[in-house]
Amino acid sequence: MEHDAWPLVLDLAGVFFFAVSGSLMAAQKNFDIVGSLFLGSLTGLGGGVIRDLVLGRFPNAFAEPVYLAPPVAAAVVVFFLLPAVVKLRRTLLLFDAAGLALFCTTGTITALTLGANPISGALLGTTTAIGGGLLRDTVANVRPQLFDRHDIYAVPALLGAGLVAFLWQVGAYTPASGGAVAVVVFALRVLSLRFR
Amino acid sequence: MEHDAWPLVLDLAGVFFFAVSGSLMAAQKNFDIVGSLFLGSLTGLGGGVIRDLVLGRFPNAFAEPVYLAPPVAAAVVVFFLLPAVVKLRRTLLLFDAAGLALFCTTGTITALTLGANPISGALLGTTTAIGGGLLRDTVANVRPQLFDRHDIYAVPALLGAGLVAFLWQVGAYTPASGGAVAVVVFALRVLSLRFR
Amino acid sequence: MEHDAWPLVLDLAGVFFFAVSGSLMAAQKNFDIVGSLFLGSLTGLGGGVIRDLVLGRFPNAFAEPVYLAPPVAAAVVVFFLLPAVVKLRRTLLLFDAAGLALFCTTGTITALTLGANPISGALLGTTTAIGGGLLRDTVANVRPQLFDRHDIYAVPALLGAGLVAFLWQVGAYTPASGGAVAVVVFALRVLSLRFR
Repeated sequence: MEHDAWPLVLDLAGVFFFAVSGSLMAAQKNFDIVGSLFLGSLTGLGGGVIRDLVLGRFPNAFAEPVYLAPPVAAAVVVFFLLPAVVKLRRTLLLFDAAGLALFCTTGTITALTLGANPISGALLGTTTAIGGGLLRDTVANVRPQLFDRHDIYAVPALLGAGLVAFLWQVGAYTPASGGAVAVVVFALRVLSLRFR
Repeated sequence: MEHDAWPLVLDLAGVFFFAVSGSLMAAQKNFDIVGSLFLGSLTGLGGGVIRDLVLGRFPNAFAEPVYLAPPVAAAVVVFFLLPAVVKLRRTLLLFDAAGLALFCTTGTITALTLGANPISGALLGTTTAIGGGLLRDTVANVRPQLFDRHDIYAVPALLGAGLVAFLWQVGAYTPASGGAVAVVVFALRVLSLRFR
Repeated sequence: MEHDAWPLVLDLAGVFFFAVSGSLMAAQKNFDIVGSLFLGSLTGLGGGVIRDLVLGRFPNAFAEPVYLAPPVAAAVVVFFLLPAVVKLRRTLLLFDAAGLALFCTTGTITALTLGANPISGALLGTTTAIGGGLLRDTVANVRPQLFDRHDIYAVPALLGAGLVAFLWQVGAYTPASGGAVAVVVFALRVLSLRFR
């Protein structure tokens, strides 16, 4: 695998993790397989589409067919493995946390690469990370997880996006330092789940 | 009527059909005439606005005042003919099916004409066809029709948009072949209503 | 203060008024301080972001960090003064009315300045004025205030936006005439609250 492929791979992994959460919500709401595919796509791709619209570029989700693969895979996984994944609720919260950690990093870098200033970049990274989940909960008519008083969700994403923008600004952003930020965000989110 | 006016006429017809469904939802929810006009506009114009934002052009709904006529007409029709249209629920599902058939065709062609590749074009056509109804149901806080297990809604739109993109790609798209696709989508949707 | 700063000041005041309404909704829904900040931001900035996306420019809310100050201030005010503001419900409806009056004016002028025709400008001004509140109510899963049969909300905004576009078209728009329109919209909205 080429070095340049890593950001794409991480971004697609984030799409998959969030798409699984969307397809699971569809299963809870008794939607059919098409509803599962659409809600998974909205969750996995929605945050990035909003980011790209704000940045004024043709959204990846529509421009690059490869972005359709993760939601399809997520819908299939949830459809065939539903009894197993329901048992694995803890594992799934880890997946969601991984999506959050990846998107606040890749979303911020995408915005900065396209010329956003550091504050705009951090805001757009946060929007990428929380946007899909907010769309999922709004369309499915449930109370947004983002607003749950007993759940620390947005703060790790905001911290991670801000840290990536800071590293970029001072010239210290590398794939390694970006990866370290993602790990920290993941850890904060997982700790918040354990100690809430 | 000039030949070039047909796409516009079909697009405005689609806006009207969907706007009627939005104004009817407003009536069911006991919104007033202003709410009826807004929800009808959101339903009839929302899918196209999302498509145009993704394509990076000034949305038709804001740029071309003629696009305001169908939602106004729909709100007036529903306001004055409400007792009749409620009885004509079957007729209205036919209208909604006609909107779906028209929008998956005109939405795809709009995207392809503006330079989208075939897959992007089919996705944007589908988005145009289902977006307005999804906004209608989300804003009105009802379970999206799109996700109804007993209702085949998105699949005909996806098939129609894919077929139009395929015809365009192989150079076989003509107004006649596009119209044939719309008729097939309409027929599939109506059959799904009869046999669900 | 320089003369040119007035539109920005009025726009930021509108953001603050609407952000307070979003943070109050968050308090009613028992969201935490982060939820209060996000729902306030969505309410105060959402209408302008939609307007800017339609106009094809980088949205102010992401481009200009100063736009983050009003939602932060609103979340802090609501957090610390909640018992007082709940008692001051009438005062808050006045704030919301002020936001509506300011946004239908500044939103229309923003669109016209960027080249929109008068009808597009009036539509975008109305969208700016009502968009944030619609997002607030949709995300919080409550019946949109916009659609309340006993509440005249959209009509004053539509009248104000139309009047500003007319004044602009005939060359009679000045900060003073724009301010007069905002006062009229505010008065209409307040009268509708008194006599509903």
